[in-house]
Amino acid sequence: MTVVETIEVLSPVLQGSSSSFLSTGTIIALTGFFALLCACIVIGHLLEENLWANESIISLVLGLCSGLVVLLVTKFENSHILTFSEDLFFLYLLPPIIFNAGFQVKKKQFFKNFTTIFLFGVFGTMISFCIISLGAYFLFKRVGVANLNIQDYLAIGAILSATDSVCTLQVLSQDETPLLYSIVFALKLLGTFLYLFFTSTALGIAAGLISAFIIKTLYFGRHSTDREVALMMLMAYLSYMLAELFNLSGILTIFFCGIVMSHYTWHNVTESSRITTKHAFATISFIAETFLFLYVGMDALDIEKWKESKASAGTSLAVSSTLLALVLVGRAAFVFPIANITNLMKKRENTKIEFRQQFIIWWAGLMRGAVTIALSYNQFASSDDTSMQDSALMITCTIIVVLFSTVVFGSITKPLIGAVLLRHAKPTISDATDLPSQEDLNILFLESGDSSEQTNNPPTRKNSLRLLISNPTYTVHYWWRKFDDKCMRPVFGGRGFVPFVPSSPTGARDETS
Amino acid sequence: MTVVETIEVLSPVLQGSSSSFLSTGTIIALTGFFALLCACIVIGHLLEENLWANESIISLVLGLCSGLVVLLVTKFENSHILTFSEDLFFLYLLPPIIFNAGFQVKKKQFFKNFTTIFLFGVFGTMISFCIISLGAYFLFKRVGVANLNIQDYLAIGAILSATDSVCTLQVLSQDETPLLYSIVFALKLLGTFLYLFFTSTALGIAAGLISAFIIKTLYFGRHSTDREVALMMLMAYLSYMLAELFNLSGILTIFFCGIVMSHYTWHNVTESSRITTKHAFATISFIAETFLFLYVGMDALDIEKWKESKASAGTSLAVSSTLLALVLVGRAAFVFPIANITNLMKKRENTKIEFRQQFIIWWAGLMRGAVTIALSYNQFASSDDTSMQDSALMITCTIIVVLFSTVVFGSITKPLIGAVLLRHAKPTISDATDLPSQEDLNILFLESGDSSEQTNNPPTRKNSLRLLISNPTYTVHYWWRKFDDKCMRPVFGGRGFVPFVPSSPTGARDETS
Repeated sequence: MTVVETIEVLSPVLQGSSSSFLSTGTIIALTGFFALLCACIVIGHLLEENLWANESIISLVLGLCSGLVVLLVTKFENSHILTFSEDLFFLYLLPPIIFNAGFQVKKKQFFKNFTTIFLFGVFGTMISFCIISLGAYFLFKRVGVANLNIQDYLAIGAILSATDSVCTLQVLSQDETPLLYSIVFALKLLGTFLYLFFTSTALGIAAGLISAFIIKTLYFGRHSTDREVALMMLMAYLSYMLAELFNLSGILTIFFCGIVMSHYTWHNVTESSRITTKHAFATISFIAETFLFLYVGMDALDIEKWKESKASAGTSLAVSSTLLALVLVGRAAFVFPIANITNLMKKRENTKIEFRQQFIIWWAGLMRGAVTIALSYNQFASSDDTSMQDSALMITCTIIVVLFSTVVFGSITKPLIGAVLLRHAKPTISDATDLPSQEDLNILFLESGDSSEQTNNPPTRKNSLRLLISNPTYTVHYWWRKFDDKCMRPVFGGRGFVPFVPSSPTGARDETS
Repeated sequence: MTVVETIEVLSPVLQGSSSSFLSTGTIIALTGFFALLCACIVIGHLLEENLWANESIISLVLGLCSGLVVLLVTKFENSHILTFSEDLFFLYLLPPIIFNAGFQVKKKQFFKNFTTIFLFGVFGTMISFCIISLGAYFLFKRVGVANLNIQDYLAIGAILSATDSVCTLQVLSQDETPLLYSIVFALKLLGTFLYLFFTSTALGIAAGLISAFIIKTLYFGRHSTDREVALMMLMAYLSYMLAELFNLSGILTIFFCGIVMSHYTWHNVTESSRITTKHAFATISFIAETFLFLYVGMDALDIEKWKESKASAGTSLAVSSTLLALVLVGRAAFVFPIANITNLMKKRENTKIEFRQQFIIWWAGLMRGAVTIALSYNQFASSDDTSMQDSALMITCTIIVVLFSTVVFGSITKPLIGAVLLRHAKPTISDATDLPSQEDLNILFLESGDSSEQTNNPPTRKNSLRLLISNPTYTVHYWWRKFDDKCMRPVFGGRGFVPFVPSSPTGARDETS
């Protein structure tokens, strides 16, 4: 958009700022929050070499400290700099985080292991959900929590079951009168879950493909990097809002939209757009995450919430420990069985998930974050009087679980992975974020397939035959690749299917100087 | 931030979306708005070759059309998809637009012509403000508008005087009892204006320098493009909020912060960060502008507002025409005199601003935009009963002026510049956005200085002497360059003063595949 300007480059400048529009409180809060965000980034960089710290922990601790300062300044009336609405979270913070997760996912590994991932995601959640709900139902009475109803226990299970809570919660909210012990209900739950899963995925894939098609057809690269980047951002956000509109899982949708965009759309844009999108999405996601953890740190010191629960420190501790234990057991109950079942189906020894890898998979998924707290608020903040105290207790205990799991589990994870995996000298598994799994072992094996992809040719017959014979478990991926090359990429673009687009004519290096 | 994840890449996926957090109305509104934004971008691209259209006009027209659709759907009760708060505007939309204007400004030309720019910005605003206020005061009575007080007339002047309205408005709000006819007051007004101007600028420069220093000292390039980009974004926003906190002009602050960041900070980061910041800032600004124009289009059809003014079409037309005429006269009253005064001070013939350039400067600054409407709301929406009708009239007339100036003046600008300037065969002036001014003529002359900058060496004695002798009017810029090279760049980095930072190790091309 070209707002025509003249020699007065200065004039747009004098055009803004009117503190009359914003209350001083809001301004102070925002200033403080942005200063804290900057501090998190700088401290995070300085402590990067530190084995025990990571940026989540730094943000949490900084949030706790500033919460303490606010407490002292306001004389124990308040610990928040900013009042945080769920809208803010679900509209602005969550979508970029999840979209970026999809956009940066290592698609080759993701698609190759889709079956395993699917088993973990769907059945793992169900198992974990059942164990935590049932466990809470039977154990909480022993520590004096008696005023929660069935719906509350199901919610606790959903909120704390792995990291896939919202989808489960949404399923629950669609079944107003759950008959927990009926098999019919369980099947229906599974059915709803699968329905949500597939429709949301389909919507995300459709949005991604449309963006790829528009950019390929209109050939935006001709003129404007900004337009391409803007369209990618807006289409992703649009897919999220559409999913919300149809009562689907917006998160699933935007995740798959991210995957499709990075597989097709990303290859149709200019080189500048590629670098920009890659880093801009990562940066926005990074800021959103830091923001969330800062907030959780402050939130933990909310005096009102602690007073409301009226529980003794002992009860709080007992409930929190119970919840933590249930999370540990709930995750163990699906990680080890499912991993061993998939191992049974595999013929080659080196594709199996070893026990120490299973251990890491179990451990690394134990952390709970800001989403858990937001959901807990949503469920328990607005309950009626009879169960108010217990509801408040649930909120504070959720916060304790999140703090403990992030700080303690989180800081142990890096050294633990080092101790368990690295001493066995597997050079490919060097980073906790790199999904230490059996794919890493197989990358070498599939190098032939990779190289054909890198040289932008469809796989040769010799290669494909060799693949088919040597390793039948990869045929799904192979057929997908074939379908992709024949039907998808010619229409939607993608690596090797669009002419080389040079850097946008603006010439990043010289113009901004 | 590394949220440790395991094989379940899928799990973050299932984690979101709960339509219970958002009302269906909000979701529909947001979906519609994002779809419209996408449409604006696509249509804008398709019509790019069109001489008469530009993206502001397309967004406005699309906004008008969708406003009409909403009107018909809601049976003439509403024309807005989204209710738009001033907070949204001043917190989220304006800062990125202005920051990007500063970040992408052609600094060499900006600093070389600082005196001229300063004269236009400061005295131009004052002159335009006086003429529009006085004109409205004397002319409005003749068309039957009688219930406005002095403060309202001053506000009209401030809102419509060039593009620098908010700073002027802020000055006004600090003088609660303006004695319009007193010279003392006028001097005080000028004093406040200059005070705001210099303190805001200083704050922006300080924020920019601090960001440059932090990134240079901590050498973020070592590890993380995301951190560098995040820090630049956050520091810019922080400077804006700080300015608001101290009752300064946040817009001026963030504009100069942008300039300083692109002069120092931008050179201290990795190559990926450079490309990312350049395009990400431009994209965000582009989306914000499109958003604003779309909204203005919808807003123009707000039935309630039209009903409230109770004015005949004739009165509305008379007031709008008066305002438009005053804008035209007010701008002419400072562009031509100031241009000719600066011409008198220049000795070389080819550095003078020719008449046809003056004409373009006058014309291109006539467009008013969404800021004007937002300010008009702020001033007139909450007035008391006695002047309510006239206040509502002021709002509707402001909208008419903005629509007319954007659509009519805006669509004529491109052909006009072509007709006035291009037929005189000045090859450097080829784009309406490229600030057609006398600098373009002088770029060739200063090539020696440029080349020394490009080879990353301080200017040689021979070059600097030649510059000093051949053209004394450039000595300010020359001394600034010398000071910059000797004192500033060694501390804050900048072109040629940081070691070459290679692309971040992530390798944008290969990883997202």
